[in-house]
Amino acid sequence: MDAVLRNRAVAAARGAEPFDVLISGGTLVDVVTGELRPADVGIVGPLIASVHEPGTRADALDVIDATGAFISPGLIDTHMHVESSMVTPATYANAVLPRGVTTVVWDPHEFGNVSGVAGVRWAADAIAGSPLRTVLLAPSSVPSAPGLELAGADFDANVLADMLLWPEIGGIAEMMNMRGVIDGEARISAIVQAGLAAGKPVNGHARSLAGADLQAFVTAGVSSDHELVSGEDLIEKLRAGLSIELRGSHDHLLPEFVKTINALGHLPQTITLCTDDVFPDDLARAGGLDDVVRRLVGYGLPAEWALRAATLNGAVRLGRHDLGLVAPGRRADIVVFEDLVAFRARTVMVDGRRIAGAGGMIEPVVDIDVAPLHGTMKIAALSENDFRVAADGKKVRVATIDRPRFTQWGEAVAEVESGFVVPPDGTTLIAVAHRHGRADSRPRVGLLSGWGTWRGAFATTVSHDSHNLTVFGGNAADMAVAANAVIAAGGGMAAASGGKVDALLPLPLAGLVSEEPLDVVASGFAELRDAVGRIVDWQPPYLVFKACFGATLACNAGPHQTDRGIADVATGKLLESPVLDVLET
Amino acid sequence: MDAVLRNRAVAAARGAEPFDVLISGGTLVDVVTGELRPADVGIVGPLIASVHEPGTRADALDVIDATGAFISPGLIDTHMHVESSMVTPATYANAVLPRGVTTVVWDPHEFGNVSGVAGVRWAADAIAGSPLRTVLLAPSSVPSAPGLELAGADFDANVLADMLLWPEIGGIAEMMNMRGVIDGEARISAIVQAGLAAGKPVNGHARSLAGADLQAFVTAGVSSDHELVSGEDLIEKLRAGLSIELRGSHDHLLPEFVKTINALGHLPQTITLCTDDVFPDDLARAGGLDDVVRRLVGYGLPAEWALRAATLNGAVRLGRHDLGLVAPGRRADIVVFEDLVAFRARTVMVDGRRIAGAGGMIEPVVDIDVAPLHGTMKIAALSENDFRVAADGKKVRVATIDRPRFTQWGEAVAEVESGFVVPPDGTTLIAVAHRHGRADSRPRVGLLSGWGTWRGAFATTVSHDSHNLTVFGGNAADMAVAANAVIAAGGGMAAASGGKVDALLPLPLAGLVSEEPLDVVASGFAELRDAVGRIVDWQPPYLVFKACFGATLACNAGPHQTDRGIADVATGKLLESPVLDVLET
Repeated sequence: MDAVLRNRAVAAARGAEPFDVLISGGTLVDVVTGELRPADVGIVGPLIASVHEPGTRADALDVIDATGAFISPGLIDTHMHVESSMVTPATYANAVLPRGVTTVVWDPHEFGNVSGVAGVRWAADAIAGSPLRTVLLAPSSVPSAPGLELAGADFDANVLADMLLWPEIGGIAEMMNMRGVIDGEARISAIVQAGLAAGKPVNGHARSLAGADLQAFVTAGVSSDHELVSGEDLIEKLRAGLSIELRGSHDHLLPEFVKTINALGHLPQTITLCTDDVFPDDLARAGGLDDVVRRLVGYGLPAEWALRAATLNGAVRLGRHDLGLVAPGRRADIVVFEDLVAFRARTVMVDGRRIAGAGGMIEPVVDIDVAPLHGTMKIAALSENDFRVAADGKKVRVATIDRPRFTQWGEAVAEVESGFVVPPDGTTLIAVAHRHGRADSRPRVGLLSGWGTWRGAFATTVSHDSHNLTVFGGNAADMAVAANAVIAAGGGMAAASGGKVDALLPLPLAGLVSEEPLDVVASGFAELRDAVGRIVDWQPPYLVFKACFGATLACNAGPHQTDRGIADVATGKLLESPVLDVLET
Repeated sequence: MDAVLRNRAVAAARGAEPFDVLISGGTLVDVVTGELRPADVGIVGPLIASVHEPGTRADALDVIDATGAFISPGLIDTHMHVESSMVTPATYANAVLPRGVTTVVWDPHEFGNVSGVAGVRWAADAIAGSPLRTVLLAPSSVPSAPGLELAGADFDANVLADMLLWPEIGGIAEMMNMRGVIDGEARISAIVQAGLAAGKPVNGHARSLAGADLQAFVTAGVSSDHELVSGEDLIEKLRAGLSIELRGSHDHLLPEFVKTINALGHLPQTITLCTDDVFPDDLARAGGLDDVVRRLVGYGLPAEWALRAATLNGAVRLGRHDLGLVAPGRRADIVVFEDLVAFRARTVMVDGRRIAGAGGMIEPVVDIDVAPLHGTMKIAALSENDFRVAADGKKVRVATIDRPRFTQWGEAVAEVESGFVVPPDGTTLIAVAHRHGRADSRPRVGLLSGWGTWRGAFATTVSHDSHNLTVFGGNAADMAVAANAVIAAGGGMAAASGGKVDALLPLPLAGLVSEEPLDVVASGFAELRDAVGRIVDWQPPYLVFKACFGATLACNAGPHQTDRGIADVATGKLLESPVLDVLET
């Protein structure tokens, strides 16, 4: 907004001074009119000073040749979690900036759940000097199921109201406790009100909400959603006036969304695009929001619509008139794409600075000090018996957690040997140990059904949303091996079988993220996934590796194992042990 | 944002409590999806609590029957001047609310030019209790041509920066000094910067700007325009990223705009609608923004597009997520239209209150005290000789102002009799007398050409933008009669011929507005126009009654008569008298 700069840009626009940079010879993707038209772009400092007829100006200190290419606004990812990529914000920026993603809306929900306000503050400090323009959101669900689990912190409305005063904070992040919103629970209503009172958007997570529940959720003040499950769901949520964050992480749904939007005959201005969660190997291989754009176009969405959703519509949602459009007076966040099919970026500019070319980052982003994220494994080494369920008598009735993802209560009869339950056939052990130092860290052990036969164990501190140490396994011995490997690594993931560690991915920053380069984390993650794949046979679509990370998500309907026991958010029930009663003494 | 209210709305949405009001049986105009679909709307307090399947809910304290009708968001007029309708804000509200206009963006530019900050403050106080939701803008051009005219006040960047702190002020109003913006003049740049620094939009007036000038104007930070002159102009300004305020006051251009938008194949989200100026008789007969919608649809714009431009697009431009859509959680500003052709409103709600029905306002809006707008005719009665041009010698060369609207300099030779110039054949006298008490009020008299033959005189204090007493005439005697009638009335308009007043419209509030009811002002205005029509023969499209009010608009290119002389904004020239030199002594 500097007046001197603005005056220089105005002078350059009218032809009285040269541009700093001229992008010439390209085809502009005009996300207002929908045209693809030849145009040159003159830039002064961080501002676009002029978009004019090709070849009419040549006076510039630097020229970027866009011949044969397409000039687009930088892509805006309206909902994501850096932590899901298991790399630092700088590494994430270095991965997506050369692909044309110039703005992200980051909910540091995972850092918040582990490291509390200090974790969110670290995120705010981490983005301060980054060319990846980042709007931070205040995590709404720390923990996601209060009373049923213990995260590393507890954010009530007062904590969030303070956080909303930070200039980096652009709103309240996804409200995951949907019933709390709909039923007007005091804690949850107060959080929504804190966002509204701050005049900042309250973002949503409206999974499977429809009819009266959806109306109530939106009336409460929630204004966006990314949890779409079908084309019909998309239409109902557009009708409800929600800002849609069409999500790339659930690829199988995208063709239906494309069909639905194409059938409407126009792109509603309330549709934006987001990634939500991108695993490190996917990030390395396919990218971030650029890959969402690429796949949508591949599924038949007009390229101009996909880019409009990813740019102008996102900017409008963010209330950022200075972004989302290649037009005079806007910020020069610009991507030159080789084509509108593969969307390979030839050049990426942020604030008028050329920050990436075809070879990648011109000057890679570096991290701030990561020390504040260390030391989050506040848990001692565990023993084999910690992963067994103690019981009296010879035979007991036990509660089970049936089916991955859409869980429900079940029951089984189990033998008891040497004071411990023998897991019945068809069950898998799940243990969750508190690791944040706010309570005892003795694992609470439960029994899953429908998770296949495990020939070993998998331990992870990435475990939504409290990120306690979570261990899946067919036997207690391997579970202890895997768990102790993760504890010794300061957090991360490990697979173990036959009494030894098969693969280990250390994630020592908050137990969620590694400082290593993306290719190292990506290959470590891929090896880990392969190792777990040798331990259990996946049965898509429900029993997949990804399901391990959501198995403890206690805010979802149905029973879920947490560090406090088996929790059911609908009833408030919490069983410390799955043993229901002794059938035979 | 009240939590108790919000919780009650949420409870009603989920079915736990009744609605306050239910709109049932209608067809919803969904300006997001573009659908016309049957839906009922439940309202709690000022909020829309639920939009649901027809007939699924009946529990409401009050039911509005929308059978056979269309439910639309209230219309939003994104650029207008109440003063142009020559009635008070309350009278204006009572005229447009029953037609479905629920929000206006008012630039009180005329009150500002006459009554200064006090005039703008009066406008802010006047809207405080009005159900017509009003966003006030800080007038940017007081006066429009500094140094060439004297208005009632002078708003520099400091004055505007203070005004921008008022919560009622939503931005800087149309920047009319286009060259000042493009050339980076200090005063004008500082005004734009004041708006940008306040984080509020700087609105534009980009008449006939194209190419490099347009790019420079927008790069300076101006973000809207309503001065469109053709379809090509519309496209160029859309491409420039401007928020378009498509204007109803220039009806002859609308068919071309409709054709241009229809050819694009979609309605850009940056197109909003506005009235700008509506004369009182047009307001009484045809309405406000509803008439712009009606005419656009009549010219072939799809009704849903016209309504989307008039509602959601306007709300987005204003950064008002709570307006512009009939959806849960939004403000219940709703119109029930009988059809989508005549757009006759059956019911109008603001903030959930039914404020108008088919019979008009349920409880008319009343004005605040108008005393602050009185006493603006700081000028004594004038004499016949005040309307003559003094000259020495027998023959002189005089400058003339040629052509209405797009003026240019001309010259003529004139006889001198008794010390005064005899107006040459084909010229009309124009006199402008300062009436704000900030300088001498001796009329400066000039000579127009191309204005026809005047058989009398017309005096008006509505004279853009300084609103000094402006008198047109064929002879000095009638000019004095008309002027003195206006002075005696405390401001307004008068026509005189044969030494007597033919018609008088008193506008005693700031010399711009009447306290009388709309029908009285409308018929008074029509009589006045007819009376002037008997004095001069109009030759459309340029020589029309409306041209009289813009004849002194010194910020426009070409010579213009002001209270200081004949002014030329391009050169800065100011001639106190049109006499150039004496040809014969």
